[in-house]
Parts: sequence; C-alpha cells; structure tokens
Amino acid sequence: MKNYRLTIQYDGTRYSGWQVQGNTANTIQGKLVAVLSALDGSTVEVQGAGRTDAGVHAAGQVASVKLRSEPSPEELIRYCSRYLPHDIAVTGACEAGPRFHARLNAVKKCYVYRIRTTVIPDVFGGRFRCTYSEPLDIAAMREAAACLTGEHDFRSFCGLKNFKKSAVRTVFDIRLTESPDGLDISFVGDGFLNQMVRILTGTLIEVGAGKREPESMKAVLAAKDRAAAGPAMPPHGLCLEYVEY
Amino acid sequence: MKNYRLTIQYDGTRYSGWQVQGNTANTIQGKLVAVLSALDGSTVEVQGAGRTDAGVHAAGQVASVKLRSEPSPEELIRYCSRYLPHDIAVTGACEAGPRFHARLNAVKKCYVYRIRTTVIPDVFGGRFRCTYSEPLDIAAMREAAACLTGEHDFRSFCGLKNFKKSAVRTVFDIRLTESPDGLDISFVGDGFLNQMVRILTGTLIEVGAGKREPESMKAVLAAKDRAAAGPAMPPHGLCLEYVEY
Repeated sequence: MKNYRLTIQYDGTRYSGWQVQGNTANTIQGKLVAVLSALDGSTVEVQGAGRTDAGVHAAGQVASVKLRSEPSPEELIRYCSRYLPHDIAVTGACEAGPRFHARLNAVKKCYVYRIRTTVIPDVFGGRFRCTYSEPLDIAAMREAAACLTGEHDFRSFCGLKNFKKSAVRTVFDIRLTESPDGLDISFVGDGFLNQMVRILTGTLIEVGAGKREPESMKAVLAAKDRAAAGPAMPPHGLCLEYVEY
Repeated sequence: MKNYRLTIQYDGTRYSGWQVQGNTANTIQGKLVAVLSALDGSTVEVQGAGRTDAGVHAAGQVASVKLRSEPSPEELIRYCSRYLPHDIAVTGACEAGPRFHARLNAVKKCYVYRIRTTVIPDVFGGRFRCTYSEPLDIAAMREAAACLTGEHDFRSFCGLKNFKKSAVRTVFDIRLTESPDGLDISFVGDGFLNQMVRILTGTLIEVGAGKREPESMKAVLAAKDRAAAGPAMPPHGLCLEYVEY
C-alpha cells in the first residue's frame, strides 16, 4: 500500500462540485474514485485539499489516495489520462509519506476570481470568467482588500447559515490584477469557508461600484453576520490555483 | 445604407462551419445573418473573409455587411453582444467604404494550428488544440516548412477532389513556435484552399515523425495530387487569427 499526492485540473462547468454527495451527484471526487478504484482493483478513498463548489474550476487541486496496487506515478497519470472525462486531468503524481492527507496538511491555498470587464463576450474563456461591465474603482477595492487581509473571524463571509465551527481564518494576501478586458482577484489564505471567496469578491465589487466604503469592511467583519456582506459571485469565475504544504 | 467591417470571434465547436449550407445547417454566417437582419429590419447579406470549416475557430474573422438602418458601430456591437449565442462575438465594428468586401479585398490571412504535445489532457484549452504526443523533429519540420513557403500550385494540399479553379497561392510565412506542452504552427498567405492548412499541418507532422524527408515537399507540390500529401489534421486545432486588407 502506497500513499500518493496528485495534482488535478478540472473545468468544473459540468459538475456538482468536488465532493461526493449521495449516489447520484456528478462530482469530481466521484469520477476520480471510480477511475482510481478501477486501476487499483479495490474501492479507494480520495481526499481533496479544497471542496470546490458546483461550477468552480481548479488548475492545481491536490488530492491524496492510498493504492494497494502501488503503480508508478507515470502509470497512474497515463491511466487517468485515458479513463477520466476530458474535463478532469491528473497533471502530476508522486509518492507521499504514509501520513500525508491533502486536506489536513494543507497550509496555504490560492483561489483566483476572474472578472471580464467588457460587454463583448469572451468566446474562448467565457466559461472561466464572470462578466461585470460597470465601472469599478480599483483603488477603493484595493483599500478594502487590505482591511480584509490578516487573521479575522470571517463568519460574515460564510455561505452556510448555521456554521458551528470556528470561522477564524488567516488571509495572507488579496491581490487585484488588471488587464485590458478584465480584473483578476487572487486570494491566498490558510483556508476558506464555504463560498467565502465568492462573497469576498461580491463585497469588493460593491466597494468598486461605490455602494460601500472601503473602511466599512471592518464593520462587516465585526458583524459576524452573513447579511452584512455582499452577494456571492457566480461560481464559474472561480478557480483553485494551487495548494501549499 | 452604410457598409460595415466587423471583426468576429467564435468557438467553432458547435457549428457546421462559417458558410450557410441549405436551410438546416447551424453556421456562424447564419447566426450573424439572423441577428443583423433583426437589427436592420431587413434581410441582410454577410460576407466573411474566410470560409472556415466545421469545428474551426476564429479569433479575428472579418465580415462585411450593408445595413439600411445605419447603426453606430457601438450600437451594432451592443446589439450583437446581446443576441448572438455565447460562442460567437462581434468584437469590433467600423464603417467601411461602399465597395469594401471582406473576402474579395483580403490581401493576407493568418491561420494558427495548435498542437498539444503531452498526453495529459488540457482541461481548459482542449477544445482549441489537437493532441499529438509522439516525438517531433522540429528542425526537420522547419526545413519542410521553408520548402512550402512562396508561390506554388497547392493542388496536392486541397481537400476538394475536383477543384477546377487555379490552386496557385502564395504562402508568405510558416512559423513553428514551441512551448513546454505544445507546438503552434502559424500560416500567413494570400489565401488558402479548402482544408489546405490542416493538410499542410498533417504533412509537416509526418515530416516531424520521420515518415517523410523535408526535401520531399518539393515532390509533393509537383505531384499536384492530393494522394501525395499527408492527412488533414482535425478541425478543432485550427483558428483563423487575423485578416489584412
């Protein structure tokens, strides 16, 4: 029995998210379990670093899996390339220590939310970007982002209504990168609550649109109330970029 | 009545090519005619610079259209952004002289054929690239490409069996650009025959695979026989990049 660390990419458009939910849901984790169980000749467990929502993409999701058949990393990648659907790919594989767990051992994750800022549709990348074509005050958004970095209770930015556990997370960096037709916002943190990146983005957009003051972010954090923050942006603009251990 | 020059992008995956064929075919030209006729309140004619095949994409197709309603270029773009399907976009529009015709006046066209050279699927760009993961001798392919540039009778590279017109075309440049996981081949010419770029690419790949000598390209051209050239590569790797006037 060997333990493996896998790097995984997916176009989340067709899936109901990372995590297996009941029998019928079409999930990334479910597809990986099916293919890796067939490879291994036994039912395997696949743990992902981030439980991405329905429609969210990943360029660098990380998963751990124990396989009794002990394939070489090259065999594992080749098998997955052949049998996974075209919109899920294992792009890297290596042996990991026996105690490595993709979710529990993750120390840093980076998500990017991609916004298309022109009204002209993006025919090549439209499934990976959300359109917001009203003017945005980027300087105000950066000021608000600075208020949100650091260790905070992010309960106001949590999409689950009755979240019982600690909502304290550390956001190391929020960076806004402009391009001629878009704005990318990258979030690096030790972990993110359910829908947290999409709600942070929706709130920052309200700041950019002049509906909120940048300094008001402190009050939003202090409220510890979902109603104090802005709306969650749609899932298709979001991508899990990388995970660090 | 004003004449317009439009720049158009499309993901060709869902379409049976640029050109309207009969009543039922799902074509890019047909979608544009429908939307622009609705805008104009009359049945309009749309002429495209390149008649791309089923499954071929465009980043810079150019079309001409005469509209009696004389909208401003901004109105035209806004209307098309709203009513065209998500995988077709008018990205630019300007008034053109009354005699401007997108196909007849084109002096230079650039197509790029994109090849993915790793076995790992490309989940984000896979619909715009064709996979060929065997080793390729790029230097030999460049040598072969040099034999194919210039003014030649390209009948051997024409996909139409009984092509009656002149098959003489000038290819100004064929350029191979390598990346860690791919190879892009750009073709600039005064015009291209049916499937010519895909057959040129298929023949260059046979050279790269060691199945043909670079110098044999001269004999392939001289044969003026489709059977002398290699296979046509699949359409989804091909994109019409730009057209010059």
